[in-house]
Order: sequence, then structure tokens, then C-alpha cells
Amino acid sequence: MDDLLKGELGRVSSDIIYILANDLFPSAIYPECLCSAVRSYPMRGGKRIRPALVLWSCGALGGIPEEAMNAAAAVEIYHSWTLVHDDIIDEDDVRRGLATTHVELSKHARVVYPTKTDADCAKFGRNLAILTGDIQQAWAVDILMRSTEKGCPPALVMELVRRLQNTVNRELISGEALDVELTMRELKAVTREDILKTISGKTVCLLKYSVQCGGAIALRTTDFRCPELQHLVRYAESLGFAFQLRDDYLGVFGDVRSFGKAPCSDFQESKPTLLYLEAMNALPESGRKELLSLTALPEYPMEKVQRIRELLTSSGAADKVLKLIAGYTEQAEENLHLLSDNKYKKLLRALSGYLLNREV
Amino acid sequence: MDDLLKGELGRVSSDIIYILANDLFPSAIYPECLCSAVRSYPMRGGKRIRPALVLWSCGALGGIPEEAMNAAAAVEIYHSWTLVHDDIIDEDDVRRGLATTHVELSKHARVVYPTKTDADCAKFGRNLAILTGDIQQAWAVDILMRSTEKGCPPALVMELVRRLQNTVNRELISGEALDVELTMRELKAVTREDILKTISGKTVCLLKYSVQCGGAIALRTTDFRCPELQHLVRYAESLGFAFQLRDDYLGVFGDVRSFGKAPCSDFQESKPTLLYLEAMNALPESGRKELLSLTALPEYPMEKVQRIRELLTSSGAADKVLKLIAGYTEQAEENLHLLSDNKYKKLLRALSGYLLNREV
Repeated sequence: MDDLLKGELGRVSSDIIYILANDLFPSAIYPECLCSAVRSYPMRGGKRIRPALVLWSCGALGGIPEEAMNAAAAVEIYHSWTLVHDDIIDEDDVRRGLATTHVELSKHARVVYPTKTDADCAKFGRNLAILTGDIQQAWAVDILMRSTEKGCPPALVMELVRRLQNTVNRELISGEALDVELTMRELKAVTREDILKTISGKTVCLLKYSVQCGGAIALRTTDFRCPELQHLVRYAESLGFAFQLRDDYLGVFGDVRSFGKAPCSDFQESKPTLLYLEAMNALPESGRKELLSLTALPEYPMEKVQRIRELLTSSGAADKVLKLIAGYTEQAEENLHLLSDNKYKKLLRALSGYLLNREV
Repeated sequence: MDDLLKGELGRVSSDIIYILANDLFPSAIYPECLCSAVRSYPMRGGKRIRPALVLWSCGALGGIPEEAMNAAAAVEIYHSWTLVHDDIIDEDDVRRGLATTHVELSKHARVVYPTKTDADCAKFGRNLAILTGDIQQAWAVDILMRSTEKGCPPALVMELVRRLQNTVNRELISGEALDVELTMRELKAVTREDILKTISGKTVCLLKYSVQCGGAIALRTTDFRCPELQHLVRYAESLGFAFQLRDDYLGVFGDVRSFGKAPCSDFQESKPTLLYLEAMNALPESGRKELLSLTALPEYPMEKVQRIRELLTSSGAADKVLKLIAGYTEQAEENLHLLSDNKYKKLLRALSGYLLNREV
């Protein structure tokens, strides 16, 4: 990551942390453990890509990023609540190097209610994590509505809230639901379109919304079809697809030590990715059988990872997906190119460049 | 229930069903089973108390109830999503005589994915039910925002959305969380205040919000401290406490055949109610031990129910709770009395009269 990008992302992160730490919304929540859980993911950080997209899109279209600060915090909280529920659904234990919300809450229960069984505490953790996400969804809407305090016109804020709760919520949650549903199907009933639709819902739509927020606040418009917003949206869309496909790719081909997730975790969870689907479509019967036998294993030592890599490469699937990523990356660049030059456009380019070329 | 009330509640119910059935929000949701699940509870009906409170409060303060129709639909959907998540948390199988959302979805999975295990299907049902509530929360906000289409001023609508996602959500979910948390504590660590706080969050706050919506739309005000709104709010608050305490009372003393829930279900789930707490505080050691031994039984035949009734009566707890209910009922009446007479005020009185004197 170049120094400018690193510095500016760091600034976004500290701005968001400052806002969230000083926001009074969570303070009235009880019991105390629910209150802490509501703050946990949003304060925990991560790359802060979504708030950066909001603020820099605002700046790229000539707006004052500070006016989009509440919108930036809102998308970060919105992202957080979907992660809290997603982690319950996927039964994940770790998020950004720390315990997931339901695990955090069940650990709390084990300390505070020592007479309760582990199963009771796990259930408590899961139940309170459901409620944590439920409040976070409302927090995001509330902080977005308070954009009027930053000088955003009320009519624009209403339209942004409406888009968030109408379009974004529906697409995002439908994407999550499809992701759950795909794991129930037999592989032959999963199509390329299904996988792209999942990515569109789970990843792309909130990124698109992020740039729409920033851009609409800059232009003081609720016409999301105006050319500059369209360029930004296509940039975010391409970025989203490229990012998610690269994430899936790095899950197999990335450096095992430095990539965030366990190697081949999608294979372990029998989660159909485009990479896997393309390989299954291209491999001969014997290869298909072998690749299938490499899913849902209890662990993935280096020789298994290596064999998966060979099958994905020899089938041409790896190349196909890399080409698709390259195409999306180019589209992202082209759409950004259509905007006037300024510091924020440069940051958006640096962000996509970093995200799409990262090895980790 | 008197005929006027019955007829008017029936009208509210068909109006709400008409609005929800024709609302386009759910149509873009996929997969299909999630789309049906999102519609399920709101269309299933129930007493429709909350939408009636919205519409009749609007009418009682001289407004046009039709203008509050979207707000009425919104509170009904809001109530629904909290029930969907509550049913997952409580592991309940039945809601309004039909399968709960997570059970409905797991049954669907068993039919559509016959190769999957029962455990996989149960997990699928739970996971998609989490997502169902997540979308319903957004649907409620979206339909409320569209109150502008009914002629409500945008600034008022924004304030109503803000209250819903700020005050109501936080109180309601905190109430649910406290309810979960109380079952983890030892009984001696549960206070009267804890139980009243749970009722305030889980039941009272959405009833208060319902009358605030209707009243504010009638008066075109965002000043919730104005006297007429305050009278309505105190009416709803007293109604809510009286209703919930009566519900707990009927859970033990109600006619076993006609009351909606299984007899003594709170005892079975070891859920501390005010009735139980007052009895435990008043009974001698032997009585306390006996009452405790009557919690968490696998079933409640009539002789156990009878014994619980005796202990609650002899301890004075039943009387104490009945007096409290009578006090709240009186407060509800008094506050209603402060409003000018009209048809809708009459309906509000009939509604509270029915709710607080019902035997089922």
C-alpha cells in the first residue's frame, strides 16, 4: 500500500472511531453486555473501505467530505450488523483476529453465570448476538438521519435512508440468504449466475451505496442516474466483483501465512465459488471426482492445498477467473477515469489499485 | 368484545392486509422462501392492536386516520420482526396457531432438499429466519417513510422514523435482551424493577410509539411533549403494563382451554414474572421451595396448575398483581378521559376495556 493511501485510510479510520466512540446512541442500551456488543465490531476496525468510499466519492465530485461523515459511519455500522448475523449463520469464531460477537457474549456468560452449562452460555451468546445486529441496523439508520446535523438537506437524507432500507437491505440480505441456500443445493443445481448474484448482494451493493451516498451529498442531488454518479457506481460495482473474486482466489492461491483466512476455507465449508464451479465444469470426470473429494475435509495441509491449486490451474479455471478479475479491474479504472482529477479521485484509484493487487 | 369494536378491529385488519398484500417491497426478495417468510407474520394477523392504536389515536385527536395508514402498517411489521427473532430465541414452534417462521422455513427445507439431515434443515430454518426479521425491520422503515405519499409532511415523517430507529428499537431490543438475561440469573438477583423494565421494553414502548405516531400525524407536530400526546402516551403506557401483567396472570389463572398459550408456560420456561416474584417474596421457606419445585416441569396437568394457583393466591401475590392491573387500568381510563369525545376516543376506550377484562 502506498504511503498516501495508508495515511488517508488511517485518517478515515480514526475519524470513524472518534464519531462512534462519542455517539450517544449505544449508551442507553441494557444490559451492559449488549451495549458493549453493539459497539464491538464497528469500533474494532478493519480496512474501513466503505467509509473511505463514502468520503472520497464525496470529495471526488467536489463535495466536502466532512458533510458525508455520518453517512460514512452509517455504512460502516450497516456492514457491521450484517457481519454479526453472518457470523452466527456461518458459526464463525474469529472476526478481525478477535472473537466473533456471539462467541464474545457466550464467553461473558460463562464468567458471569458460572452455574450455567456451556450449551446455555452458547445459546445466550447466539441470542444476544441476534439482538446486537438488530440494534446496530437501527443505529446505522439513526446516525445516517443525523446527517442533517452536518449540513445535508433533509430531502436528500430521506432519500438516502430510503435507499438504504429499501434497495440495499433487500439486496444485501437476499444475497446472504442465497449464499445460505446454495450450500443446501446439489452442486449441479448451482449456476455461474447464482454465484455472481450472491456477490452482487453480499458485497457489491453496499459498495455501490457507499459511493452513491458520498456522490449524492457532494452534488446535492437525489437523481442517482446523473452521469457522475453513474461513473462512480460502475467503479464501485466493478471494484466489488473484482474484490470478491480476488478474495476467493487468494483463499486458495494466497500466501497461507499472510492471508487472513485459513487456506481453502471455502473448500472446507463446501461453499461453491466461481473458481470451483468453473473447474468442475471444465475438468474430466476423474478430476471432478478428485476435486469433490477435496471439499469438506477436517483440515487442509499444504499437500492438499497444492493439489487443489493444480486442479484449478490445469482446468483453466484459475486463468478464467483471473481474466474476469482483470476485466472488472479495467472497468473500475475506466469509470474512474471519466471523473475530473483531484486528490480524492487519486485516492479512489489508489484504493482500487491496492485492493485488486493485494496478495493478502 | 362489543360489536362496534369487533367490526372496527376487523376493518383495521383488512385495511392492513390490503396494504401489505399490495406492497411491492417484498417482491424483489430472493430466494422465494425468504420472500414468503417476510410476508408471513404480518399477513397472518392477530389482534392488530398496534395498527388500531395508530389509526384511532389519529382520529381521536381530530386527524384523518387514512393519513396514518402507512404508520399503522409499519408498527405491525415492526412488531412482526421482533416476534420472528423472539421465536428463534425462545425456540417456540407455534405463533398464532401456525408454525413459527424458523419452523416454517425448516419444513420447507425438508421438502426441497430431501438429502439434507434434519439438523441441516433446522439450521437453515433458523438462519433464514434471522434474515427474515432483518429484512422486515427495513420494510417497516421503508413503509413508514412512504407516509409522505399519504400526505404526511416529510419533516414529521423523518422525526417518526428517527424515534422508531432510535428510541423504540433500543428500548424494545434492550427489553428483549433483559428478558433473555433474567433467565440466566438466579431468582434472588431478579428485582421487581427488572421485570417492569422488561415489560416496558418488550410491550409498552411500541404501544406508546403507536399512539405517538397517530397523534403526531393528526396534530402535524413533532413536539411529543404537547398535552394531548402526553395523555395518549400515558394511556398507552398504562394499557401496556396492565395488558402484559394480565397476560401473565391469565397464563396461570386463565381458562386452560381458551387461553392462547399452554397453562403455566412461564413456569415451565422458568421465566420470572411479577406474579412469581411477589409469591416468592411473600411465601414462607416451605412454600418457596414448593413453588420452585413447580418450575421447569415437563408438563403441567391440572393438579399442578391448581397447586400453583393456590400458592399464588395464599401468598397474596395474585391479589397484589390484580390490584396493580386495576391501578394501571384506571390510569389508562383517566388519561383517555382527558381527550375530547369522538368516535375514535370511544374505540380506544372499548379497546382497552376489552384488553384488560378479557378472559382469554
